[in-house]
Amino acid sequence: MKIIDGGVTKPKGFMAAGEHVGVKKRKRDLAIIYTELPAVYAGTFTTNVVKAASVLWNMERFNNGNKIQAVVVNSGNANACTGKVGIEHNALMAETTANTLGINTEDVLVASTGVIGSLLPIEKIVTGIQEVGKTLENTEKKAKDAAIAILTTDTQTKEIAVTFEIGGKKAVMAAMGKGSGMIHPNMATMLSFITTDVAISKELLDKALKKDVDETYNMISVDGDTSTNDMVIALANGACGNDMITDEGKDYNTFKEALHIINTFMAKAIINDGEGVTKVLEVHVTGAHTLSDAKKLAKSIITSNLVKTAFFGEDANWGRVLCAMGYSGADFDPNHVSLVYESKKGSIQLLQDGLPIVFDEKQAADILSERNIILNVVVGNSEFSATAWGCDLSYDYVKINGDYRT
Amino acid sequence: MKIIDGGVTKPKGFMAAGEHVGVKKRKRDLAIIYTELPAVYAGTFTTNVVKAASVLWNMERFNNGNKIQAVVVNSGNANACTGKVGIEHNALMAETTANTLGINTEDVLVASTGVIGSLLPIEKIVTGIQEVGKTLENTEKKAKDAAIAILTTDTQTKEIAVTFEIGGKKAVMAAMGKGSGMIHPNMATMLSFITTDVAISKELLDKALKKDVDETYNMISVDGDTSTNDMVIALANGACGNDMITDEGKDYNTFKEALHIINTFMAKAIINDGEGVTKVLEVHVTGAHTLSDAKKLAKSIITSNLVKTAFFGEDANWGRVLCAMGYSGADFDPNHVSLVYESKKGSIQLLQDGLPIVFDEKQAADILSERNIILNVVVGNSEFSATAWGCDLSYDYVKINGDYRT
Repeated sequence: MKIIDGGVTKPKGFMAAGEHVGVKKRKRDLAIIYTELPAVYAGTFTTNVVKAASVLWNMERFNNGNKIQAVVVNSGNANACTGKVGIEHNALMAETTANTLGINTEDVLVASTGVIGSLLPIEKIVTGIQEVGKTLENTEKKAKDAAIAILTTDTQTKEIAVTFEIGGKKAVMAAMGKGSGMIHPNMATMLSFITTDVAISKELLDKALKKDVDETYNMISVDGDTSTNDMVIALANGACGNDMITDEGKDYNTFKEALHIINTFMAKAIINDGEGVTKVLEVHVTGAHTLSDAKKLAKSIITSNLVKTAFFGEDANWGRVLCAMGYSGADFDPNHVSLVYESKKGSIQLLQDGLPIVFDEKQAADILSERNIILNVVVGNSEFSATAWGCDLSYDYVKINGDYRT
Repeated sequence: MKIIDGGVTKPKGFMAAGEHVGVKKRKRDLAIIYTELPAVYAGTFTTNVVKAASVLWNMERFNNGNKIQAVVVNSGNANACTGKVGIEHNALMAETTANTLGINTEDVLVASTGVIGSLLPIEKIVTGIQEVGKTLENTEKKAKDAAIAILTTDTQTKEIAVTFEIGGKKAVMAAMGKGSGMIHPNMATMLSFITTDVAISKELLDKALKKDVDETYNMISVDGDTSTNDMVIALANGACGNDMITDEGKDYNTFKEALHIINTFMAKAIINDGEGVTKVLEVHVTGAHTLSDAKKLAKSIITSNLVKTAFFGEDANWGRVLCAMGYSGADFDPNHVSLVYESKKGSIQLLQDGLPIVFDEKQAADILSERNIILNVVVGNSEFSATAWGCDLSYDYVKINGDYRT
């Protein structure tokens, strides 16, 4: 298992492109991923009751068992809360992509991200798709263009590729993603597109994806809001030539391992680039009675505004951590909680069995001056653990979100 | 039912005092409320698993059916996460108050608010209680002193008194409270002490209080965190001479009405004085299938960081409101949602049946420039409705909470 340079075009048989078509003023805003060999497809989607047109379209593709040949993505406008017209626009994006590439409309996925409640500038998008469709290439440069074109308030592209051997063949898995504000459990304005040249059954791709998403994307939070447009899409075109994975044996485990590397990287990259982030927090909860308790505790800590502002202020205010655990809904005994803060500068224990330990404020401040901070939380002797990733809450978060729309 | 000047000493038979005893540097930090006539007592407490020593003490007093003669409150230190020593300190506060006033230790309630995890400066507090206990008076000035002494980051005292007739007698109900950061459903670092000279059974006082707290304090949110120390305490000493209320008739309804005025005032005062608040939001949800759905929708809107920052930015970003409704867990049809923003400057409709209405941005900005804003959200034709109160999320919130402890 080796991380290599490159993005979604790195697995065999995938092409991509990303250009500016006029949804945004100047920046790239339309991306296409294409695979000549139809790909097995799985996806996880926002749990928000208010779902964007693209989410509904892609869920139907999964339910119908479509094999997928293209994904078209626009940024700058989420095409959410746009009613019937929005649904028609979404279908037109798929249809135009299909016509341009000579494939079936039903085999195209769609994603949109950006402002909610405005109609897409559909003529620009239709013309744009026809043009971008002609520029597809199997190069790192084009993968990067696509990775740029899906961003909104992100400051960096998020790409990763991993190579590994599966069934005696060299395989590759890669992804591009976008995140920033509104990132929260159960999917957020977070898009992630995973490509791989492994051959795997739809059932196992689905199973592996759902399980891993629960432990990666669903364990991050920027601001506690869950968006209308979130999705993680995985496409497996089988071009590497392995015997199709149809049972949960060795090959499946290798596949899951690659997926976990990809998704963990992407989840952390999204947090690292969250709106106004100055601290990246990793919370390890161990010793919980159940997996659900461990997850609730870890998530509650990273979601608390008071915890987040304390880290922004580099303040070792462990009371807020304990308080957030207390209202998490998890079953635990506060009298068995131990807490250690850790960074490149060292580590410091703040709580032992629920009671504060006298600590050196200067040393704590030094540890908290780092950007990356780990919270190790032990809640007992039981066997369950969970990790969640979050960030601080800064002036800039308020600034970015105080006037996003206008 | 008439609102009058004054605070907790306004009902017959109540005395109060509030002084500086040295928990804080300079400001008043210790308050006592006293009633010669033992009072029937009810309370609601934080649902946080991590409960301060004072919360545990007061819950026991309720369970034991104690009649209460005094409440002692310190600010500046929450005496939470302080283990056995904290519990001993808390008992010592009750005992010292009892000895000073010549009453039973078991008939004293205790409250603490402030920093978590530090031991109380108990010697200063013991000496302080002995001194403050000598200064009790039945005056508005002393009620105000007490109301000042329970504050932490609050910028204003929160006092109210209401007079009304009950069973042919003139009765009074009053309260003092404190709020600011960490205010969230199911109790927050929020203290509220209600005094009344009405005679009412413990059962009915408890029932009236619990129900009303659910519709007032539990419908506000400053930052989504639920504190370890929250409580609402009600003391009824019967000094006005009415026949004791023992059934749910006319007198009980009058009592409930007074309680609702007191609690609504206090809930709104707490929001209005929330940390860094520049906008006060009142959300009315109507037409929901169930009361629980209506509450979930209203609460989800006022708790969303993205909604809060949008109001800070005076941005009519209705998409975030709809999005917060979508992940609330409530059952509703997004296609039936209508949304109107309203302030002293007028009102403007943004959504009709789930679809955006083209609106005048200038008019919207004018309406949102006010401090008090109402969101009217209609989700259908069913009968259930709920109101929640919240505030925006500002630079100052981050500033205040980034470095609270040190």
